[in-house]
Amino acid sequence: MGKARLEAFSDGVLAIIITIMVLEMKVPHGDTLADLAPLIPVFLSYVLSFIYVGIYWNNHHHLLLAAKHITGGVLWANLNLLFWLSLFPFVTGWMGENHFAALPTAIYGAVLLMAALSYFILQQRIMASDGAQSVLKRALGNDWKGKVSPLLYLVAIGLAFLWPLGSQLIFLAVALLWLVPDRRIERHLSPHTSD
Amino acid sequence: MGKARLEAFSDGVLAIIITIMVLEMKVPHGDTLADLAPLIPVFLSYVLSFIYVGIYWNNHHHLLLAAKHITGGVLWANLNLLFWLSLFPFVTGWMGENHFAALPTAIYGAVLLMAALSYFILQQRIMASDGAQSVLKRALGNDWKGKVSPLLYLVAIGLAFLWPLGSQLIFLAVALLWLVPDRRIERHLSPHTSD
Amino acid sequence: MGKARLEAFSDGVLAIIITIMVLEMKVPHGDTLADLAPLIPVFLSYVLSFIYVGIYWNNHHHLLLAAKHITGGVLWANLNLLFWLSLFPFVTGWMGENHFAALPTAIYGAVLLMAALSYFILQQRIMASDGAQSVLKRALGNDWKGKVSPLLYLVAIGLAFLWPLGSQLIFLAVALLWLVPDRRIERHLSPHTSD
Amino acid sequence: MGKARLEAFSDGVLAIIITIMVLEMKVPHGDTLADLAPLIPVFLSYVLSFIYVGIYWNNHHHLLLAAKHITGGVLWANLNLLFWLSLFPFVTGWMGENHFAALPTAIYGAVLLMAALSYFILQQRIMASDGAQSVLKRALGNDWKGKVSPLLYLVAIGLAFLWPLGSQLIFLAVALLWLVPDRRIERHLSPHTSD
Repeated sequence: MGKARLEAFSDGVLAIIITIMVLEMKVPHGDTLADLAPLIPVFLSYVLSFIYVGIYWNNHHHLLLAAKHITGGVLWANLNLLFWLSLFPFVTGWMGENHFAALPTAIYGAVLLMAALSYFILQQRIMASDGAQSVLKRALGNDWKGKVSPLLYLVAIGLAFLWPLGSQLIFLAVALLWLVPDRRIERHLSPHTSD
Repeated sequence: MGKARLEAFSDGVLAIIITIMVLEMKVPHGDTLADLAPLIPVFLSYVLSFIYVGIYWNNHHHLLLAAKHITGGVLWANLNLLFWLSLFPFVTGWMGENHFAALPTAIYGAVLLMAALSYFILQQRIMASDGAQSVLKRALGNDWKGKVSPLLYLVAIGLAFLWPLGSQLIFLAVALLWLVPDRRIERHLSPHTSD
Repeated sequence: MGKARLEAFSDGVLAIIITIMVLEMKVPHGDTLADLAPLIPVFLSYVLSFIYVGIYWNNHHHLLLAAKHITGGVLWANLNLLFWLSLFPFVTGWMGENHFAALPTAIYGAVLLMAALSYFILQQRIMASDGAQSVLKRALGNDWKGKVSPLLYLVAIGLAFLWPLGSQLIFLAVALLWLVPDRRIERHLSPHTSD
Repeated sequence: MGKARLEAFSDGVLAIIITIMVLEMKVPHGDTLADLAPLIPVFLSYVLSFIYVGIYWNNHHHLLLAAKHITGGVLWANLNLLFWLSLFPFVTGWMGENHFAALPTAIYGAVLLMAALSYFILQQRIMASDGAQSVLKRALGNDWKGKVSPLLYLVAIGLAFLWPLGSQLIFLAVALLWLVPDRRIERHLSPHTSD
């Protein structure tokens, strides 16, 4: 019961985040391609963030499928994750409007890093609540993606001040890494839901 | 269980899209009919898009009623559909503010086209997951609406540069075509829910 | 099952409408009472609309509790209601910004009227779907509130051009009339949920 | 059933409130740290309000877990709470933009006070509906937090005109007080969900 409402609230917040990001693409006044052109970087940063929020929703969905107990600690770890994700519209708009400049790129990476760490903490809280028989623990295995991603974000933050495009390529690479859905949990929960 | 949350998230995103579109109608400062008049094209484009998002919600609702398995592939096909639908507020506002000019009309048609193709892909993924006993497959039959709509959007995109009003009429005609709810699925699921 | 999703989508739209209305109260730049004063009419129109959306949510909740079958016709009647309610943020902002002037007041009344008629249509569709054993039909009785409200809105629309404050008083009176929750349905569904 | 929809609607409104607050952080045009600096107070006020809305969601979640009957009175007490919470984005933005000046701080405190009183009323309505066997009544005990918080808000409102920073410290202290989740209800509902 508690789980259903945690999911509903998270879904609501994620649905709003993913949708209001598009409001950063301000409707241009003219009706020519030249009026549309300045929006291309904003659009690209929107696509990148849409993929990231989609990944978070997807993994969050699998994470909670595997969770058995929802404790107060889990609720707050979840709110902490939502807080960092709620900064996506701001950093996405800022990065897009400044054509992927150094500082906005680094700050975007920092928000990605904080979101990744928050997700990691949420995962830990759920495993701690579920104890030794945690489905999640068995499903995650060594969780190499969860460990490599923050390191790559750190590299991207530093790289932003030398070569911002390089940071963007790292953001894209990490996204592609995660686009593969978390089969581990799916497999442990039910053999019938594999793709 | 997975299906419930997919529906909840999609409902959230669709509810937000349909509602924030109205924010493109900026409150005018004066209080006369003359102040309201410039908003008429924005209002008309809002009505058109409201009907389209309503149709998508309606059909999405029937589509998922018929789906048995939610795989990772289905989740991503659904996110892809939501991405294109999330561009509705932008293209609606742009088309309305420019009084249905050629390029905004063509871009609006392009977003409709991408949404239709994404819906088709989602439908395919669900049928593939459900396999031979797919209720959806039997319910859809030859799916002529799903095949004709993208062709009509293509025509509308080309026509926009010659006669934008013609494109609008096509958009309206396709909407009316779909306004008839997808009885096929309703009929196959339960004979008691027919209108 | 279909009912659950209809409720979820409607809840989403109503929740967004009620919340984005507050965005029409633009944060003032100064920090004195004089900076806050111009917002008072906007705030008052927000309070009025919040109550109205609250009433619609409340009655919609009871209406669907009493509904047995969700047909395609019910889905579209519901979307039609949501369309008119989605215009609340616009007319609320316009009326507030123009200090309850004649035309914005009349248009506000017109949107209230259309929402009331849409609610009536939705009610009819549900009773038609449920047929002779409709719980709703018995619960509604003669539905005098549903019949009187549109008439009062009509009066308020006309009065707006002579005495706008009078129209506001009518809007308020109708709201108070409905604030009493729809006991009829509650009573017919379960004797244990009475207040 | 009625409870599920009350939760869904409240979750929707709370999810939107918590997410649109971030829209008050307007994307700056420049790409330097100097462009970001003016946003720091807006960011801090956002963090404070995010924590408060998180606390309300958390406690609301526990409150409804303990509720047995949802009457019309409970629905309206809940809408009243949501009304005051819906003013958070406005007062948060105003306080942040004016660098925690006296009047915005006092008004922020007033909204916190009204939200706290509304929560108290909602709690009373639920206990009244549930009658003598109310789980909530036993779980709440003397409810000292619920009684002390409004008093502290009152002090903060007065203090704002002498020492606004002191008011902020009180807001923060009350938030920390509530960050500890409401174990009382958790404990009374199930011994297995303790953290």
